[in-house]
Amino acid sequence: MIDINNALQLIQQHCTTSTPIQTIALPHALGLVLAEDSVSVIDMPPFRQSAMDGYALCIGQNNSYRLIGEVKAGDNKNPSLKPGEAVRIFTGAAVPDTAETVIMQEKIVRDHNNIAIEGSVEKGLNIRPKGEQIQHGEIALKKGTTLKGTHIGYLAGLGITSVTVHIKPSIALVITGDELVPPGGSLTHGKIYESNGAMLTAVLTETGYQKVSAVWIKDDYEHTKTTLLNAIETHDVILVTGGISVGDYDFVGKALKTIEVEEIFYKVKQKPGKPLFFGKKNGKYIFALPGNPAAVLSCFYIYVYPLLKQLEGAYVTQLKRITMPITKDFVPKGDRPQFLKARILPNGVDILSGQSSASLRSFGTADALVFLPENTCQIPKGGLVSTIPIPS
Amino acid sequence: MIDINNALQLIQQHCTTSTPIQTIALPHALGLVLAEDSVSVIDMPPFRQSAMDGYALCIGQNNSYRLIGEVKAGDNKNPSLKPGEAVRIFTGAAVPDTAETVIMQEKIVRDHNNIAIEGSVEKGLNIRPKGEQIQHGEIALKKGTTLKGTHIGYLAGLGITSVTVHIKPSIALVITGDELVPPGGSLTHGKIYESNGAMLTAVLTETGYQKVSAVWIKDDYEHTKTTLLNAIETHDVILVTGGISVGDYDFVGKALKTIEVEEIFYKVKQKPGKPLFFGKKNGKYIFALPGNPAAVLSCFYIYVYPLLKQLEGAYVTQLKRITMPITKDFVPKGDRPQFLKARILPNGVDILSGQSSASLRSFGTADALVFLPENTCQIPKGGLVSTIPIPS
Repeated sequence: MIDINNALQLIQQHCTTSTPIQTIALPHALGLVLAEDSVSVIDMPPFRQSAMDGYALCIGQNNSYRLIGEVKAGDNKNPSLKPGEAVRIFTGAAVPDTAETVIMQEKIVRDHNNIAIEGSVEKGLNIRPKGEQIQHGEIALKKGTTLKGTHIGYLAGLGITSVTVHIKPSIALVITGDELVPPGGSLTHGKIYESNGAMLTAVLTETGYQKVSAVWIKDDYEHTKTTLLNAIETHDVILVTGGISVGDYDFVGKALKTIEVEEIFYKVKQKPGKPLFFGKKNGKYIFALPGNPAAVLSCFYIYVYPLLKQLEGAYVTQLKRITMPITKDFVPKGDRPQFLKARILPNGVDILSGQSSASLRSFGTADALVFLPENTCQIPKGGLVSTIPIPS
Repeated sequence: MIDINNALQLIQQHCTTSTPIQTIALPHALGLVLAEDSVSVIDMPPFRQSAMDGYALCIGQNNSYRLIGEVKAGDNKNPSLKPGEAVRIFTGAAVPDTAETVIMQEKIVRDHNNIAIEGSVEKGLNIRPKGEQIQHGEIALKKGTTLKGTHIGYLAGLGITSVTVHIKPSIALVITGDELVPPGGSLTHGKIYESNGAMLTAVLTETGYQKVSAVWIKDDYEHTKTTLLNAIETHDVILVTGGISVGDYDFVGKALKTIEVEEIFYKVKQKPGKPLFFGKKNGKYIFALPGNPAAVLSCFYIYVYPLLKQLEGAYVTQLKRITMPITKDFVPKGDRPQFLKARILPNGVDILSGQSSASLRSFGTADALVFLPENTCQIPKGGLVSTIPIPS
C-alpha cells in the first residue's frame, strides 16, 4: 500500500510515451494539445491602431486643426499630415505615420473642415502601438497548451490557420461484474444496472476523450485474460472496473499478472479507491479501478485524467488544488486520507452529505473534491481545506 | 446607460421562451437540460446489498458459525439461515433476508465449514439497505438539470434509458468590420485578421452549443439589414460583433432600429463592453456586442451564456461568483464597474496583466473574471474580490 503522492509520482514517471502528432486546421484543434510552440507570423496590431472614434493630429501651435481627410477601419491609407492638420479616424483604423495622437470625438468642436480641441493636447493618446500584443516571431502559445476556445480566437487573430497537435489517446473500458444488467434489461434478485460504462464514457467525452470503447465481461478468469490482452493491443489506455479486490471471484489481479502487465502499484492508502492498480505493458497503461461507481469516478479524476493529459503532451499533469474555507463543521469518518464530494459556494466549499462510494447521487451536485490528509480531526466552519475543482 | 445587475435582470425577464423538447436515449443526452423530472423506477440498491467481502450471519448464541453456502455478486439466491448459520458473501451480493449482519473476512477464522468470529457481533454491519440511495418513484434529477457525465452514470444505474430534454438553441454570428481579413488571407495596410467568428464558434462549441453559423459582412447599411433579418428568421439567438459604437460607419444600431428589433437595453455601465445592446424580435434574441475580441468574450460569458442556459430550460441563469483573496496588490484603472481577466491559484485569485479589450492574449491564461464594483480603490494583497469562474 502506497500513499497518494507516491502513486501520482509513479504515474507521472512511468508515463514515458506520448500520442502521435498531426498538423490540422485551427478550427478543428479545440481541446487538443499543442505539440510545438505556435509562433506569431505578424506584429499584432500590424500597424499603429486607433483605440477610439476621433481625430488623429499632427500637433500644431494652437488648439485649432484643419481636417484633411478620413481614415476608417480597414482603409489602406496613410495620409501625410503637417503640423496643425488632422484626419477623422475610427476605432481600429490605421493611424497615419505623421499623426502623433488621437483625440476622442467627444473632446472636440467641429466646424466644417476645422476642429477645435478642448483642453491641452498630449502625444500618444488612444493609439495602440504596432506589435503591442505580440511581435512577429514571438511565441504566441507554448507547446503543451491545451487549446481552449479563447486560444483558437487568439491564434486566428494572428493569422495562424493550422497547428501541430497530439492526437487524443484511445481508451478501452473493461467492465466486470456478474451482478450487472445492461440498461433496460430486467432486474432479477441480486442484480443491479450497470453504470460504470455509461458514466466513464460520458465523463471521458465531457473531458475531451471520445475514442472510447467499452466491453462488459463476466467474472470469468479466461474471459478476463483474453479481453484484457485484446484491449491492450488496440488501445492506449485501459480502464478496468471491479474485480480488483480480494474476493474469490475477483479475477482481474490474477489475469493482469498472468498476461505480464508490469505492476507499478497496487493499493493506495486512501478513501475511496483503496484497491487501485496501475500497470504497464507494451507502452500501454492499465488502471484497474474499484467497482463502486463513486470510487471509480474519484480515481478517474485524481489518477487517470492527469495520465491522459500527460499522454497527449499537456503541461499540467495534476489537478489544481485551491485552499478554501469550509462552509460548515465537518467530522471525517475513518483515518485514511480521503477525497470527499463537495460543492464550491460563494463563501467557501460545502462537503456534501452522501459520501458512499456506491452512490453517484452526490457526485451529480459536486463540482469539486475536498482532500483531507490522514488523521484529520474535526474541522470547524471556516477551516481551510484543499479543494480540487473537478475538470469538465 | 444601465447598470450590470439591471442588464442581467432584463435579460432574465425578457427570456420568455424555451427551446423545444425531445425524448432521447440517455447516452446522447450529455450536456442537455432535463425538461422533466427524471424519476427512479427502482429502489437503489434493489435489495439489501453487502458492502464487503465476508460472511453474512444469522446471529447465534456464541461466536462460532456453520457455513451453509455462498452468495456472490449477481447470484439470484436467498438462502434461509437459522441462528448460528452463515453464508460466504461478496461485495455487491444480495444479503439473505434471514441474515442480520455481514462480518469482514479479515475478522474471522475459518476451519472448513465452520467460522469463528473475533470479537463481538453487531447487527446491521456492512449492509446497504434496500433503497438507501433512492427509492422507487423518488425524483432522481430535477427538471432544469444540465446533464453531466456523472448524471448519465447515475441515471443509467437506476435503469433509466431515455430522458426528455430541451434541444440546443441555434446561434447566428454576424461579424462586421471592413478591416477584417479571413484567416490565411494577405494583410494589406490597415487590415487585421478576423478572430471573433473563430473565437465565438470555438467558445460556443466548448460550452455545449454546436448549432452555430457565422456570416461576415462589410460595414454597409443595406447588407447589415438584410443579413440581420435573415439571421433572425433562421436562428434562436443572434450575436453581432462590432458596428454598435458611435462611429459614422457603425451601421448595426441603425439597422436594428429599422428592422424593428425591440431595444431592451443599449449601453451598460461597465468595462469592457460599454456599448452592449440587447433586443428581441419575433421571440428571437439579439445581442450586439463590441468589436474588440476580449470585450466580446467578457460580454459573452456574463450576458449571453446565461441567456443560452435559460433558453434551454436550465435552472442556473447567472454565473457563480466566489469570494476569493487576491494574490497581489491591485490598483484599478478607471471608475466604471469592471470585469478583469484572472487566474485562480492555490492561494487566491491573480488578476492578470494585459487587460486591453483588443487583446485575447491574457484570456488564454484566464480561468475566471474578477468583478470590481464602481469606484473601487486600491485592493491590498489578500483583499476579497468577487470571482467568476469561466464556464467550459
